[in-house]
Amino acid sequence: MSTERRLHLPGIAYGGDYNPEQWPEEVWAEDMRLMREAGVTMVSVGIFSWALLEPADGVYDFSRMDRILDLLHENGVAADLATPTAAPPAWFFKAHPEALPVDPDGRTLSYGSRQIFCPSSPAYRKAALRIANVLAERYADHPAVAMWHIHNEYGCHNAACYCDTSAEAFRGWLRAKYGDLPALNQAWGTTFWSQWYYDWDEILPPRATGAPPNPTHRLDWRRFCSDELLSLCTAERDVLRKAAPGIPATTNLMVLRTFDALDYWRWAPELDVLSNDHYLMSDDPEPEVDIALSGDLMRSLAGGHPWLLMEHSTGAVNWQPVNRAKRPGEMRRNALAHVAHGADGILFFQWRAARAGAEQWHSAMLPHAGTDSRIWQDVVLLGADLQSLAQVRGSTSPAQVAVIWDWDARWAMELPSQPSAELRYQDLVRDWYTPLWRAGVAVDFVRPDDPGIDRYKLLLAPSLYLVDDTSAANLTGFVERGGTLAVGFHSGAVDENCHVRLGGYPGAFREILGVRGDELFPLLPGQTVSLTGEVPQDATANLWTERIRLTGAEAVATYAEGPLAGVPAVTRHPYGAGTAWYVATRPDPETLAALMRRIREETGVRPECEAPEGIEVVRRRGTDADYLFLIDHAGQGAEIPADGVELLTGKPVCGTVTVPAGGAAVVRESH
Amino acid sequence: MSTERRLHLPGIAYGGDYNPEQWPEEVWAEDMRLMREAGVTMVSVGIFSWALLEPADGVYDFSRMDRILDLLHENGVAADLATPTAAPPAWFFKAHPEALPVDPDGRTLSYGSRQIFCPSSPAYRKAALRIANVLAERYADHPAVAMWHIHNEYGCHNAACYCDTSAEAFRGWLRAKYGDLPALNQAWGTTFWSQWYYDWDEILPPRATGAPPNPTHRLDWRRFCSDELLSLCTAERDVLRKAAPGIPATTNLMVLRTFDALDYWRWAPELDVLSNDHYLMSDDPEPEVDIALSGDLMRSLAGGHPWLLMEHSTGAVNWQPVNRAKRPGEMRRNALAHVAHGADGILFFQWRAARAGAEQWHSAMLPHAGTDSRIWQDVVLLGADLQSLAQVRGSTSPAQVAVIWDWDARWAMELPSQPSAELRYQDLVRDWYTPLWRAGVAVDFVRPDDPGIDRYKLLLAPSLYLVDDTSAANLTGFVERGGTLAVGFHSGAVDENCHVRLGGYPGAFREILGVRGDELFPLLPGQTVSLTGEVPQDATANLWTERIRLTGAEAVATYAEGPLAGVPAVTRHPYGAGTAWYVATRPDPETLAALMRRIREETGVRPECEAPEGIEVVRRRGTDADYLFLIDHAGQGAEIPADGVELLTGKPVCGTVTVPAGGAAVVRESH
Amino acid sequence: MSTERRLHLPGIAYGGDYNPEQWPEEVWAEDMRLMREAGVTMVSVGIFSWALLEPADGVYDFSRMDRILDLLHENGVAADLATPTAAPPAWFFKAHPEALPVDPDGRTLSYGSRQIFCPSSPAYRKAALRIANVLAERYADHPAVAMWHIHNEYGCHNAACYCDTSAEAFRGWLRAKYGDLPALNQAWGTTFWSQWYYDWDEILPPRATGAPPNPTHRLDWRRFCSDELLSLCTAERDVLRKAAPGIPATTNLMVLRTFDALDYWRWAPELDVLSNDHYLMSDDPEPEVDIALSGDLMRSLAGGHPWLLMEHSTGAVNWQPVNRAKRPGEMRRNALAHVAHGADGILFFQWRAARAGAEQWHSAMLPHAGTDSRIWQDVVLLGADLQSLAQVRGSTSPAQVAVIWDWDARWAMELPSQPSAELRYQDLVRDWYTPLWRAGVAVDFVRPDDPGIDRYKLLLAPSLYLVDDTSAANLTGFVERGGTLAVGFHSGAVDENCHVRLGGYPGAFREILGVRGDELFPLLPGQTVSLTGEVPQDATANLWTERIRLTGAEAVATYAEGPLAGVPAVTRHPYGAGTAWYVATRPDPETLAALMRRIREETGVRPECEAPEGIEVVRRRGTDADYLFLIDHAGQGAEIPADGVELLTGKPVCGTVTVPAGGAAVVRESH
Repeated sequence: MSTERRLHLPGIAYGGDYNPEQWPEEVWAEDMRLMREAGVTMVSVGIFSWALLEPADGVYDFSRMDRILDLLHENGVAADLATPTAAPPAWFFKAHPEALPVDPDGRTLSYGSRQIFCPSSPAYRKAALRIANVLAERYADHPAVAMWHIHNEYGCHNAACYCDTSAEAFRGWLRAKYGDLPALNQAWGTTFWSQWYYDWDEILPPRATGAPPNPTHRLDWRRFCSDELLSLCTAERDVLRKAAPGIPATTNLMVLRTFDALDYWRWAPELDVLSNDHYLMSDDPEPEVDIALSGDLMRSLAGGHPWLLMEHSTGAVNWQPVNRAKRPGEMRRNALAHVAHGADGILFFQWRAARAGAEQWHSAMLPHAGTDSRIWQDVVLLGADLQSLAQVRGSTSPAQVAVIWDWDARWAMELPSQPSAELRYQDLVRDWYTPLWRAGVAVDFVRPDDPGIDRYKLLLAPSLYLVDDTSAANLTGFVERGGTLAVGFHSGAVDENCHVRLGGYPGAFREILGVRGDELFPLLPGQTVSLTGEVPQDATANLWTERIRLTGAEAVATYAEGPLAGVPAVTRHPYGAGTAWYVATRPDPETLAALMRRIREETGVRPECEAPEGIEVVRRRGTDADYLFLIDHAGQGAEIPADGVELLTGKPVCGTVTVPAGGAAVVRESH
Repeated sequence: MSTERRLHLPGIAYGGDYNPEQWPEEVWAEDMRLMREAGVTMVSVGIFSWALLEPADGVYDFSRMDRILDLLHENGVAADLATPTAAPPAWFFKAHPEALPVDPDGRTLSYGSRQIFCPSSPAYRKAALRIANVLAERYADHPAVAMWHIHNEYGCHNAACYCDTSAEAFRGWLRAKYGDLPALNQAWGTTFWSQWYYDWDEILPPRATGAPPNPTHRLDWRRFCSDELLSLCTAERDVLRKAAPGIPATTNLMVLRTFDALDYWRWAPELDVLSNDHYLMSDDPEPEVDIALSGDLMRSLAGGHPWLLMEHSTGAVNWQPVNRAKRPGEMRRNALAHVAHGADGILFFQWRAARAGAEQWHSAMLPHAGTDSRIWQDVVLLGADLQSLAQVRGSTSPAQVAVIWDWDARWAMELPSQPSAELRYQDLVRDWYTPLWRAGVAVDFVRPDDPGIDRYKLLLAPSLYLVDDTSAANLTGFVERGGTLAVGFHSGAVDENCHVRLGGYPGAFREILGVRGDELFPLLPGQTVSLTGEVPQDATANLWTERIRLTGAEAVATYAEGPLAGVPAVTRHPYGAGTAWYVATRPDPETLAALMRRIREETGVRPECEAPEGIEVVRRRGTDADYLFLIDHAGQGAEIPADGVELLTGKPVCGTVTVPAGGAAVVRESH
Repeated sequence: MSTERRLHLPGIAYGGDYNPEQWPEEVWAEDMRLMREAGVTMVSVGIFSWALLEPADGVYDFSRMDRILDLLHENGVAADLATPTAAPPAWFFKAHPEALPVDPDGRTLSYGSRQIFCPSSPAYRKAALRIANVLAERYADHPAVAMWHIHNEYGCHNAACYCDTSAEAFRGWLRAKYGDLPALNQAWGTTFWSQWYYDWDEILPPRATGAPPNPTHRLDWRRFCSDELLSLCTAERDVLRKAAPGIPATTNLMVLRTFDALDYWRWAPELDVLSNDHYLMSDDPEPEVDIALSGDLMRSLAGGHPWLLMEHSTGAVNWQPVNRAKRPGEMRRNALAHVAHGADGILFFQWRAARAGAEQWHSAMLPHAGTDSRIWQDVVLLGADLQSLAQVRGSTSPAQVAVIWDWDARWAMELPSQPSAELRYQDLVRDWYTPLWRAGVAVDFVRPDDPGIDRYKLLLAPSLYLVDDTSAANLTGFVERGGTLAVGFHSGAVDENCHVRLGGYPGAFREILGVRGDELFPLLPGQTVSLTGEVPQDATANLWTERIRLTGAEAVATYAEGPLAGVPAVTRHPYGAGTAWYVATRPDPETLAALMRRIREETGVRPECEAPEGIEVVRRRGTDADYLFLIDHAGQGAEIPADGVELLTGKPVCGTVTVPAGGAAVVRESH
């Protein structure tokens, strides 16, 4: 993330996507009045306006956008002005049918929705950069424009295209990476199944085939797809910077449970401001964990700095099978949790609920029912809450614990032909994150090759199937120098080319863990095995087991039954000046929580504050004061020891602060 | 339905599809003998005979059909002679591969099955009308021909084709509907997601795309697909009428649980005789409800007049995952129920069970086992039953209750991107229909814009997501003038273009219902919420809830728990001279039955006759007498108060009639 | 199976697939050392070496293969040298994109995996035969080469291709079969649904269509697909024979639970040596039954002679959703069971676990962990076990019971549009096989038209939906002459063209069974019906019932409830000098076991030896001695009456032999 260009808005930004093009202009005046009522300070505009801004190839009509931006400026609302490149107009595809994306089955997708274009299409790139440039030049000096919003949710619908143009781009990316074909053949292991390539032109995207694919081919394809979209993003960014050097640019990432197409470690440094779209899954029994995890990951992507919540929802979305509404107070708790985890702006999709189109049943700040509605009332109250938290802006949350997060490891572990197709990276990380979140322990996320990991006392690698030598050495050094590292099963298994690390499992971490495995024993769905040792009574494990042997470590837990009865399941190994733990299975949540507590306590990592179960605790630290966020997800309320000023009510806090049932408190703690 | 051309057959027609082409001619004589034994009066012939009638382009061979029709005539069996256009021959597709249908993924489907053609193909249309014309001219005066059977089950397999020819036809339909592109853009809401069209040629069928489709685009597509097939049907009809002005024409509709491709309100007026194909679903625990509902809908489509059951089965079908046989007596109960709900003809697919081909395991009147079989015995007995009911012919069943039925509302509610993908129109209607059926209350179905709805005391709109202004005004007027209307949840939500009606839910019915909702709370699968108020103990609801507020109505039931605890779930609102009920959730069956009983009793609607649970009660009213059908689905038998003559046995009834266990009674009640 | 060319190796061959190309040459020396340690006597080489052997069209590089074969020879390991034709190189597809296979949806599959080619492609055939020929000529006299391994697992991924070239080949096959179109039209029943063909060119593969397909079309397609691959196999065989007349050729079949693409009755006679690949399914609760069944079927395909286990696994595979490891001792029990059922060679996929590629997580003889591993220890021990069994080689297992096995019947019953889509041929056969296996009864498999069936006392036809007249007469004659035949439900239903046999079920067997059915009553998933009669208490049946009537048979069991209460479910009929049983439903396992025991005992068929539940008993009979295999799957161990020498320990056996818990004993019983 560039630090040169920042968003200059006071306090916590508040607003949402604003699509006035969908409404008669007489509605716009009401919009302005209501934005003021709600305390809206910024809106995103123009995200899907291409067809209106450029009604024909090279013909522009900015009259409507002029009026929108003027109106916003007059009403003191900043504009996050989007390049409209996420949805090319129908006329573009009529002229460039070759720019339509092709799926792995060879099926050309049709337009008439959004974000349907081939990321490698030269025609698309040319048209996108041209409209971005014309837009940027026109509005570079408009006083409403506070930020550029590049595109929208890169990769949401077209993360990969398998057409011949994409194939050529893929080959170019591979040439740049490998230099020559023998290097690629070596990396991909093409002596297997007669896959050796003798000519670059023989290489294709991993299109549908009848038998299992080459894993390294697939992994490089995912890397390419992420990079290809990033190249579109940076190309737009450069156009915008040239036209308006002082305006920061962002694009809305999708750090949330279900999206995994992009390696945001590579994206983050290219953006001036990091922003995120986050939505709850209706079937998630504890969506607040995903908010916290996503927020911590966003803050970590931003180098510890705050970020913007570019989109979330006031209520139900419309793209899940069943879209549940938010419960009473949930919208406020969600928004405050995002702030707690580093958001310096809270925006919604969208300002006014749509009448027509695919998102007509998506909630908004101003619902179909209008202002006489619970949601609108809550939106107005939230605006006031955020104003009371203005001083929180810029503060951050240093942590003593970091979770290793790596998209390469995620992609590689979820490739076909694994010992178990049941492994889900996001779930495995959340398994370990949850007990820390529940305990109120601050958590960062780091890359496995982060050179500064010594700033942490404790590193957790819940899932690190793929790890390159540099990263493995980095983590080893961390332990040698006194750190504590806990590693989840099936980690260290393969190198950056997906080649198995030989000699025993878990390949890269065998030595520091002091264990050696010779065979993997994944469990069938529904299958569990009981654990014994230093574990809670009735402890069980599921999903995965391994046959390991101690080669220096001690067994903390062992399997009590089954073919691995007596084999260690959790181990602890003093190594160098530090300690390395191995969790060779997936313990049940209670057992895992006890284990995480023990590991944490051994390393001296303490919660931000002692609070009863169900109270989320996060502390943001500022230059003059700290801000203790206390959010009640359990609906019981609580009295929490604190001193300072509770900002949401403005009342002083002496000794204890009351967290209302289902509500929140934010205590300013002076330094 | 035209009233000029009627089918002139005495009594209740009896028979089935007859495909003698599949058998050596020596079998035909046995067919005739057995038809006479069974009392067969009409068979459908030639449905799939194209390849034999026209062995090459423009070359005809009618010799076999001549012999078939002569034989039928000699044996006193009327012919329902089909145009063979549902299955073009292989030679046609060899010559016209462009006439093969294309699915939304761009996949061209192959021939070698049936009903595989593009509905918009000029080559198909030309070939179909030509064979229809040649056939009609040849047999216009054949004495066996009592009716034309146009095509077969329009839309069963090829309701939609996505090829370029279909695209052009779709554009033509849209031009005719909208006149100009701004009107279309307005209707489709194309300011959303940059979907504005500047040229008609930019518009395509809703082919596969990577993101959610435009709902209005999809809805218009479904309307077009229905109309496109209808245009084929009417074109054939016109050819037939020209050649044989006096012979009525029908096509076999598919009013049954699983088919929804065609808007039969638009089809019915184009046909001389309405006929239906109805099959049981093996996993339907109460298929007799579907028979009744479908029959009432058929009778309503026919303007209250009788219709023909063109196809049903003697036993198992072969196109479901597991095809259960009928239970003892079930075939007879099914057939009599069809008659009770208005069928003046009972035909089966098919006469003689096939040896070969895709339908070889479909039951028939004459099974593989031959006449020494239960099914054949039942077929012969049913023939006698139907002869005893001959006088029922032409009678009908006026009702005081009507259910609003609308294909536009069905299609629209089941589009993607809804609050819940669990909503099924057919299920929601059946939910409300079932307690009325169980109580023996006569029910009609009506269009929402039916100008004659004042003939009913009670109107039910279990599901009317889409409603245009005309229909909304029609229903409002009904209540104002004293009628009672009950409306199910998520009704009145959008207009004819799928635009949300703003200002609060349920948009179009807010005023007459006296409630106002501001947020929708669909429930997850398996989730229930308990109800309190004027409801049975342990009442629950599922699938859907809403947060509504009373604005004139009274609460009849409220939610007893959850985020909407205390919010009304069922309301009642005196409005004008009438009353409007809102059922804002999906009550459990017992609760819904109690509610329907209360609403019905308030409006003075009474059952046709008091009968114990499990006895279906239907009354057909004739000019000289009424006919009380009593069918025992519970297998217990019953004594029912009645006077007259029991037609199946021919015995007089004084005071009570006995319904045998698993059997039926039909009492002629003289006026 | 040809008897001229046999594999000349002493004792039980031991080894696996060897892919040294995937490793640096410095590893090869270790390979040789470890092969000697494990007692490896044969390895398969070159299976996927095409891209390395022929780096460009017509350019060869045999240097690596030369070194490999020399090395093997130096170390006393025989080579099973493969033609590498299962995976053409990328350069081939770049030059011949038309040789890529097309699926029924018209989707062209991409290369970059394995076995992706159109079986009918002339370019592929030419290229495959050329590389086979060059290879054969080069190595015909190499002393390491003991056998040719043609291709690999024919049909595993490309059993069918639907491209235009395949269509032409299919038409050629049909012309050869039918001679003229009227014969084809008659066989396919094309009077149904207007499917009559007037020109050969109108016939296509059964590509995706929108409605149910013609069953005979589909069945002939499956026959063609099997024959088409067989023609590739025999063409390669002929090339190899010409170059090296003395070297036997095999191809690895896939007789295991999940594969059904090829009619191995037609394949077996074309091969010099029969070999099989067998893998356990992780979700199979009793995989040892599949091993036994597959082994007995292999031995039967080989005409009663031994065969080779070309591939199985030391532990987990990698191509199932979750791949479980083998339990302690399971690998040894598996291998010995294969030997017991006729394997004279035990080979694994593969020698050394792969680092890269799609099979990197497939177990091997030498795991990733190296020799310090349980698997390696077990591999070495198994090598010793097999050496101790050397004398077993060549012995066989004559049986008194045979199960009718027929791929035509399997394919036909699993076509669409059946009464129930729940019927699975493999499951139905295994149902009947299991109690015989559990009882230690030797079982053969035979073709329904086997002319020598009088060598058996008892024939079982658990599932014989399709049966031609010759086979029906063959089985009838067997009963007439005194044999006992038991027939499962839905057998004899159709002839070789899938035409239903008329007059009552089960068509072809009505007379010998002495029953006649008139209607089929398949049961819904989860539905059961209780049985009464000569059955265990609480006997139930599921999946299927029929209404049959006795026409000479006696009822052994009847349905106790439901619509068929009182109808016979199992019948017994003395016919001619023999007896015929009909099992008209699917009894629960205990009931079926009791029934099988009764039938078996009536016919005087006895187990090989009395052993407690859980001990597998198989006897191989040699010229000088018999070999009694006793394998403990229950883990309890047992004492079994026996006399002779226990070969695995070398200890004499007097009176009883101890089968260790989870282990095995092989007793040499002198004649």
